[in-house]
Amino acid sequence: MSDHIVKAYDQELEVLGQKIAEMGGIAEKMLSDAMDALVDSDVKLAQATINSDPRLDVLQREIEERAIMTIARRQPLAVDLREIIATIRISNDLERVGDLAKNIAKRAIKIAADVRIPRAIIGLRSMHESAAMLLKDVLDAYSQRDAERAHGVWIYDADLDALEDSVFRDLLTFMMEDPRNISFCAHLLFCSKNIERIGDHATNIAETVIYLVTGEIPPIDRPKGRTMLSETSTTVG
Amino acid sequence: MSDHIVKAYDQELEVLGQKIAEMGGIAEKMLSDAMDALVDSDVKLAQATINSDPRLDVLQREIEERAIMTIARRQPLAVDLREIIATIRISNDLERVGDLAKNIAKRAIKIAADVRIPRAIIGLRSMHESAAMLLKDVLDAYSQRDAERAHGVWIYDADLDALEDSVFRDLLTFMMEDPRNISFCAHLLFCSKNIERIGDHATNIAETVIYLVTGEIPPIDRPKGRTMLSETSTTVG
Repeated sequence: MSDHIVKAYDQELEVLGQKIAEMGGIAEKMLSDAMDALVDSDVKLAQATINSDPRLDVLQREIEERAIMTIARRQPLAVDLREIIATIRISNDLERVGDLAKNIAKRAIKIAADVRIPRAIIGLRSMHESAAMLLKDVLDAYSQRDAERAHGVWIYDADLDALEDSVFRDLLTFMMEDPRNISFCAHLLFCSKNIERIGDHATNIAETVIYLVTGEIPPIDRPKGRTMLSETSTTVG
Repeated sequence: MSDHIVKAYDQELEVLGQKIAEMGGIAEKMLSDAMDALVDSDVKLAQATINSDPRLDVLQREIEERAIMTIARRQPLAVDLREIIATIRISNDLERVGDLAKNIAKRAIKIAADVRIPRAIIGLRSMHESAAMLLKDVLDAYSQRDAERAHGVWIYDADLDALEDSVFRDLLTFMMEDPRNISFCAHLLFCSKNIERIGDHATNIAETVIYLVTGEIPPIDRPKGRTMLSETSTTVG
């Protein structure tokens, strides 16, 4: 590519990167606010979390549009194509993280008037801490193109899955102890599943970062089951 | 485009369409088998369902790869670009349908040894019938490029959401009646949510078909919350 085209192309990548960073910030805040709303029965904060979601949807659409237009216009080489494909994938995952945080916020509203069972929420807080850390780490790994850090996220997600299993069993125990706990704990079951799935999306993003930096696809026995675009062509067009 | 290029391009679209059709067939069968496995405590069928999932992942990856290479090589006009973007999106949704069916199959294995509560499964069967119909309809709407039929799916999904609400309440009631039902019904809660989400993906596909045929994005008050790529450019490249 000529210098002129390279510069225009770099600018397009930079805009895409900025939009991913904005999405990452919104998704992190939504997760943290949704959990605060759940713990504190804060209906107003839950509603604010739900209201943040459309912005993520708009950003995801903009990234997809721009990325596809850039591919069609610039016919990028393989390494640059990876950059663009990564933005499409990461924006999809962050949009899903927002949806899952929104689901938690909706549950927070549904159970805001219920009698609290503080013991039942402790496990969810641990899960939230892990998921928030995974999300932060993987977003840092992306902005620094750090495959090693991404690999750490990819490994750690298995712990979050184990934690979810344990929270599932605890919540069933609280339900069996007192039928009045059943409705509250049923909603928490779904919240816990939503947090686990946020961890899955962090893992997906970690795979994308590894693919972006190394061109390689993590081994098949990875913690979670999403497959990735293999690098079959070295150049495009 | 010259006739020669148009022909090569049409062939690429045809291959993509065939792969989508294959994915659709697998996803439909996985859903149906997962539900049979759940209803009949058929661990072998559940395992077979789980084993089908990697094929969907491979197809999704192949479609994404081919679609992006086609965009980069052919610099398609807007209407053709819509065809290609539609294959990427629909393959994503079908891959997720497979994941959700796999989740149901995993739960079928977990509760295979539990005491059955036939009443608890009735609601799930109704949900499954609706979801299977939505999936079949939307795949037909895609293969026939039938926006009206897609619109029917898009409208109908709200009924499935209402059914899920009712199943949720019923399952909580069974849990309250007898604590020995709690574990079994907790797993069914997740199965019911998985079916509802399969309906959401059918709705997503319906939106994609409407966008593909008309170039329009359904109104913002659609039953479900995914946004779509807007048609901002009329040509690409």
